[in-house]
Amino acid sequence: MKALAAITGAGCTKVGEHWERSLLDLAVEACLRALEEAGNPPVRALYVGNAASELVNEQGNLAALLADALALEGIKAAEVRAGDASGALALHQACLDVSLGQEGAVLVCGVEKMTDVMAPEVERVQMLFEDSRSTFHSGVTVPGLCALLTALYMERYKASYEDIVLFAVNDHRNAANNPCAQYPFPITVETVMGSPLVADPIRLFDTAGIGDGAAALVLTRPEEARKACDAPVAVVASEVATDRVNVCEREDLLCLRSLRLAAKRALKRAGLEINRVSFFEVHNTTSILGILALEALGLAEPGRGVELLREGEIAIGGRCPTNTMGGLKGRGHPWGATGIYQAVETVWQLRGEAGKNQVEGAEVGLAHNMCGLGSISCVHVFARWEVVS
Amino acid sequence: MKALAAITGAGCTKVGEHWERSLLDLAVEACLRALEEAGNPPVRALYVGNAASELVNEQGNLAALLADALALEGIKAAEVRAGDASGALALHQACLDVSLGQEGAVLVCGVEKMTDVMAPEVERVQMLFEDSRSTFHSGVTVPGLCALLTALYMERYKASYEDIVLFAVNDHRNAANNPCAQYPFPITVETVMGSPLVADPIRLFDTAGIGDGAAALVLTRPEEARKACDAPVAVVASEVATDRVNVCEREDLLCLRSLRLAAKRALKRAGLEINRVSFFEVHNTTSILGILALEALGLAEPGRGVELLREGEIAIGGRCPTNTMGGLKGRGHPWGATGIYQAVETVWQLRGEAGKNQVEGAEVGLAHNMCGLGSISCVHVFARWEVVS
Repeated sequence: MKALAAITGAGCTKVGEHWERSLLDLAVEACLRALEEAGNPPVRALYVGNAASELVNEQGNLAALLADALALEGIKAAEVRAGDASGALALHQACLDVSLGQEGAVLVCGVEKMTDVMAPEVERVQMLFEDSRSTFHSGVTVPGLCALLTALYMERYKASYEDIVLFAVNDHRNAANNPCAQYPFPITVETVMGSPLVADPIRLFDTAGIGDGAAALVLTRPEEARKACDAPVAVVASEVATDRVNVCEREDLLCLRSLRLAAKRALKRAGLEINRVSFFEVHNTTSILGILALEALGLAEPGRGVELLREGEIAIGGRCPTNTMGGLKGRGHPWGATGIYQAVETVWQLRGEAGKNQVEGAEVGLAHNMCGLGSISCVHVFARWEVVS
Repeated sequence: MKALAAITGAGCTKVGEHWERSLLDLAVEACLRALEEAGNPPVRALYVGNAASELVNEQGNLAALLADALALEGIKAAEVRAGDASGALALHQACLDVSLGQEGAVLVCGVEKMTDVMAPEVERVQMLFEDSRSTFHSGVTVPGLCALLTALYMERYKASYEDIVLFAVNDHRNAANNPCAQYPFPITVETVMGSPLVADPIRLFDTAGIGDGAAALVLTRPEEARKACDAPVAVVASEVATDRVNVCEREDLLCLRSLRLAAKRALKRAGLEINRVSFFEVHNTTSILGILALEALGLAEPGRGVELLREGEIAIGGRCPTNTMGGLKGRGHPWGATGIYQAVETVWQLRGEAGKNQVEGAEVGLAHNMCGLGSISCVHVFARWEVVS
C-alpha cells in the first residue's frame, strides 16, 4: 500500500436541523476544526462538495465564498458536484491535486443545508440527480425507487422486510455513540415497522432524514505528513465510476455496478484483497441500498446480504463492521457533506478515537458514497500510517 | 515550455437559441465532434462544466448523464461548478487528471442551455454566483455591478463610454468570421450607443447575450499526443485563483486580482513573459470587464486599457489580438461552456485554422474565464506543439 495523500486534520459539525445557522457558517466551523487539528498549515487549494445550494439556499459559487470566509486570500478554489456523492467526488479531485506534489495543504469540505426548504421540495431536488427525461417527470421519489428495488429483492431472494431493515437498526445502534450524529439513539425492527409507510414497503425509519451539516479534511503530500501531525491517516485509493442513470435501463436492477467497478479499481490500486479491509462505510439512503452495497463489494453473494445482517457480521466486532458511526440513517445524510463525514469517521477509527464504537485493530477502512441510486460511485480506501509503505 | 496535457480533438456547437434541443443533445454533439477529431480514442474520464442546469433545466448530475448518453460505460465522470467559470475549471481538473499519467483520453465538455427560462430568471440565477448575504438580495444584477465599475473607470481615468465599448465592437468584428458565433455580424460604436440602456451607462449591445451551446476537448498525456493526431496543441499552464466575492470588499474595485494572480502563476509555470503570448481570450460579460482583464494581464497600465482599443492593438494584426473569434459578446456566452469555447477557438488559432481571423505566426495563446466579476479566475496557456520542448 502506498499513500496518495495524507490526512492531517478532520473535523465536522453535528448533523441536525441548524435553523439558526447558514450553509457557510457550518462549512467554516468544520474547516476551522480540521485546520486546527492539522496545526493550521498554509492552505494552497480548497475543494467543496455540495449538491443543491442554488436551489435550496439561493447561493452558488460556494468554493469562492468559503475561501473568502476563511480569509484564504487568492488561493485556488473549486466546487465539485454529483448529487449526494459530491463530498467524496470533491475528495477525489483534492487527491488528484495533492498527487501533483505541490507544497502546502489542500482543504476539502462537504456541506449541505437542507432545512431551508420543506420536505417535498427536498424530495423534488433529490430527483434532479435522476434523469429528468424519464424518472423525474414521472413523479416518483428516491424512496419510491428504493421501494421498487426492495420489493424486487424480497421477491427474488425470498427476503423479509423485517430482515432488510436490520441495516437501519445497525446504523442507529452505532449512531448512539457518535456525538455528531443526527439520531443518536437505538431503534428496533419494531420501531421501523411501526413508523409511517413512505413508499410501500419502505417506512419512515428506513429512510435517511433531512439534515444540515459540514465536514472537512486537510490533506498533504505523504512526504509532509509526519511534519504536520503525529497520527496522519493515509488515502491509499480514490476511484470513481458511473452506471446507467436510469435504474430501469440497468442490466440487473439489483446490481450496483458503479460501486462494483470503483471498488475493484480501488482495491487494485491499493494492492489489497477485500478481506484486508477492517470496516466499511456504505451509502444507505435506505436499507436496500446498504445491502446492495455489501453485495457489490463482494462481502456477500447476491441475495445473501441479509444474512450478514441477521448474523451480526456488520456490527462492531462482526466480520465486516459497517457504518460504524451511524451511517446515513443514524449519523444523518446532508447530501454533499456525507462523503466527507464518512472520511472523518474513518479517520477516527484509524486513529483509535472511535470510543465505544472502536473496531479493534482497525488498519484499513473503505468508504462508499454514491449519487442517487448509483449513477456515480466514489470509493476511497484509507489506512493507518503504520501499515503504509 | 513543457506540456501538461495535449489536446487532440476540439469541437463545439453554434452558440444560439436552440429551442428545439436539450442540454444533453448539445453536449453530445460537441463531444462527438471532439472525439471524432481525436480519432475516437478510448475515454477513461469525463469532466463537465455547467453553471445552472438544476435551476434552468430541471436537471442535475450532468456528468453521469453525459457519460451514459455517450455510452462511455462505467468511466469516471465529474461535474465542476464555478458559475460562468465552470468550463475552464473543468478543464483545470481534467489537466490534473491527465497529469497523473494514466493511459487513455480525458474528455472535457462545457455546456449551458439558458433559453429554457426567460431573461429575468437568467439574471436572477446569474446573481447566485455573487454573495447572497449582500449583493444578491439587494436586487442588483451583473450588468448593474458592471455599470458601477464602468462609471468609476470613466470618472477615475477620464475615459468615455464610447471608447470603452470599442471592446464590444472588436468582438463583433471577429465574430463575423466565426461559423459558431451567436452574433456573426459587425457593429459600430453607434450601434451600441443607439441600443437600449440596461444599467446606466451600460447598453444592451455592451452585454453578452443569452444563448445555448456546448464545447468539448479531448486531452491525452503528452507522450500519447503524436500517436493520436498530427497537430496536437499543448496545454502548458492551468491555474486558478480567487478574490473577495463581494466586489465592494475589494481593495481596488478596478483591479481583477484573481486574474492577476492566476496569470502570474500560469506564466511562471509556462516559463513565459507576457509578450511571448500571441493572442488573448478574455472574459468580457461587458466591455469594462474585458478592459480590466487586459490591465490585470499587464498589457496596459491601470486606466490605459482603453488606449489599446483606440489604437487597434487588440484587433487581429495588433500587438495583442484579443477575443479573436468573437469573445463573450460576439461568439456568445453560454456560461459553463464559455471556458471551453475559448479553448476550442485557441486550438483553431494554434493549428492555423482560424480562417480570416488567423493571427499570423500564432504560437502561444492565453485564455481567461472567470466567475461573475472575478471571484474565481482560471487562466490557461496553450501552445503549438512545435514550440513545446
